[in-house]
Amino acid sequence: MERFDIAIIGTGPAGLEAAINGKIRNKNIILFGNSDFSNKLIKAPKINNYLGFNDISGIELKEKFQQHIEAMDIKINNERINAVYAMGDYFALMVNEKTYEAKTVILAIGMEAAKPLKGEEEFLGRGVGYCATCDAPLYKGKVVTIIGYNKEAEEEANFVSELASKVYYIKMDKGDSSLNENIKVINDKPVEISGESEVKSVVMKNGTIETDGVFILKDSIAPNHLVPGLELEDGHIKVNRAMETNIEGLYAAGDCIGKPYQYIKAAGEGQVASLKAVEYLSKTK
Amino acid sequence: MERFDIAIIGTGPAGLEAAINGKIRNKNIILFGNSDFSNKLIKAPKINNYLGFNDISGIELKEKFQQHIEAMDIKINNERINAVYAMGDYFALMVNEKTYEAKTVILAIGMEAAKPLKGEEEFLGRGVGYCATCDAPLYKGKVVTIIGYNKEAEEEANFVSELASKVYYIKMDKGDSSLNENIKVINDKPVEISGESEVKSVVMKNGTIETDGVFILKDSIAPNHLVPGLELEDGHIKVNRAMETNIEGLYAAGDCIGKPYQYIKAAGEGQVASLKAVEYLSKTK
Ligand SMILES: Cc1cc2nc3c(=O)[nH]c(=O)nc-3n(C[C@H](O)[C@H](O)[C@H](O)COP(=O)(O)OP(=O)(O)OC[C@H]3O[C@@H](n4cnc5c(N)ncnc54)[C@H](O)[C@@H]3O)c2cc1C
Ligand SMILES: Cc1cc2nc3c(=O)[nH]c(=O)nc-3n(C[C@H](O)[C@H](O)[C@H](O)COP(=O)(O)OP(=O)(O)OC[C@H]3O[C@@H](n4cnc5c(N)ncnc54)[C@H](O)[C@@H]3O)c2cc1C
Repeated sequence: MERFDIAIIGTGPAGLEAAINGKIRNKNIILFGNSDFSNKLIKAPKINNYLGFNDISGIELKEKFQQHIEAMDIKINNERINAVYAMGDYFALMVNEKTYEAKTVILAIGMEAAKPLKGEEEFLGRGVGYCATCDAPLYKGKVVTIIGYNKEAEEEANFVSELASKVYYIKMDKGDSSLNENIKVINDKPVEISGESEVKSVVMKNGTIETDGVFILKDSIAPNHLVPGLELEDGHIKVNRAMETNIEGLYAAGDCIGKPYQYIKAAGEGQVASLKAVEYLSKTK
Repeated sequence: MERFDIAIIGTGPAGLEAAINGKIRNKNIILFGNSDFSNKLIKAPKINNYLGFNDISGIELKEKFQQHIEAMDIKINNERINAVYAMGDYFALMVNEKTYEAKTVILAIGMEAAKPLKGEEEFLGRGVGYCATCDAPLYKGKVVTIIGYNKEAEEEANFVSELASKVYYIKMDKGDSSLNENIKVINDKPVEISGESEVKSVVMKNGTIETDGVFILKDSIAPNHLVPGLELEDGHIKVNRAMETNIEGLYAAGDCIGKPYQYIKAAGEGQVASLKAVEYLSKTK
């Protein structure tokens, strides 16, 4: 399998600037994220604090970024990483059933405001998970509930439904679904995950489902759920000024490492993370 | 005297981005530096790692920065700060005989590669100084040597020559000089500052001058000479991730706080420093 020098997760300003610097330093990089870059970018009405661009809209700034990365021949892999495992001298990045390998990883995943569900953290690893396809084998012949926020979640549900005895899908987004027929779709609001030593049920506003496992599939995964063993501090990824996390070869930049939440701060940190990853690669070669 | 909310020293990307953010937050700011911004900017042939601008020259990027700050009505005070003193609840910034006051200060002074002269650090405060006009009264009727790197140094020398019994001027830059007639210009290369408890002489390649005091007037002053009491680490200003130095209300950003030396890293840090200064101002109000 191809092993990349640097895998970058996230296509906001932090991830894009990291990609540019890795590319300039002639590294074999792979960039995961959204081909529309970042909702936080395209939704900004007016930006006037990104030095060099006065009074620009988010859409316009996005176009400038796009021209830049296209000119440098940087491609975006429109895939969502479900998990990153530190394997010693490399990292394994999971996209459902697929795996990528990289010597270093930069987390530029932004910050999701949503609070966890009641019971979510308590039962994590005891019935609660964030990657249904990864853990599906554990639920062969069992009942699985998926709280799904997007299209990818539906694909994961379809995959699980081939193994599980029963799949409930609590649909959190709007629009059509493309779920297999044997999946039971539920239009209700989850309130709590409860159980004893293991998960037993999902309590909703208007009912309760008995279940052996619950997968919560959001757009963004809490960093320490994405990377087992990753140290946090005040709800953000803990880094030093070199953007190093507690895991060797793993860097982080942007909103996910702390306030202020701003574009050029994120970009500057993405640059530092990338150049530090390059230094690390040359030391470990 | 007018007391500014934030004084920003330096007009590279770190200082400019700090100014923009201070202005957006409606603070009364003052920005000191070069109206040409930064030599490190205008001398760059091609820049391709500043997200949003691919393959741009330093001059072109400088113009983008200029448009941005002009549109926001940010003015540059083309003055060189010789010293910053922490006065308790405010800072005094010295420009020769002139003083400015500010509640917070952001150092965005870049990084000067030049090594100190032999004896320079040893005799600092014992005959060696960096602000001739500030210390001139100490040298009334005495012999003063000025090692001058720029036009401002000549002005300082002229000022000192009105008090000192004799002024030697070791001219380190090229071009005409506008020194008073009673100043002796020396075209030689300084090698060492020597003395016993106090400075006694300046040793040059081709001669020695007996002197009571030596002023070294470069484009940039080492940060801990600029701000007495400022803590350094590996030759850079020591800051935490909030860009706070060891002195309350004093922040630093850009090359002066450490590598990598890069534009967008500097800008991102300037933003953080500025927003943290704004936070500090609202707490101490
Ligand atoms: C409406 C609005 C207006 C704003 N206005 C301004 C402004 O004027 N000035 C300013 O400086 N800031 C502004 N901000 C803040 C700014 O948007 C953020 O600070 C900035 O986008 C952070 O950049 P980032 O790269 O850290 O993360 P983000 O921009 O949040 O990007 C994170 C990226 O990671 C991707 N991702 C996350 N998890 C995964 C995964 N597991 N696999 C693959 N991809 C993943 C996401 O899809 C996204 O593309 C605004 C924000 C909003 C919401
Ligand atoms: C030739 C060259 C090419 C480069 N190319 C690139 C590149 O392609 N990409 C990249 O990212 N980086 C590049 N760099 C590095 C980049 O220039 C620096 O990292 C960046 O300019 C640092 O910004 P700064 O704001 O910290 O400091 P600087 O840009 O150095 O600005 C410091 C400012 O402070 C002022 N100042 C200092 N002391 C005082 C004082 N006491 N009173 C008043 N003003 C003061 C100075 O006059 C100056 O204006 C290049 C550098 C050079 C020299």
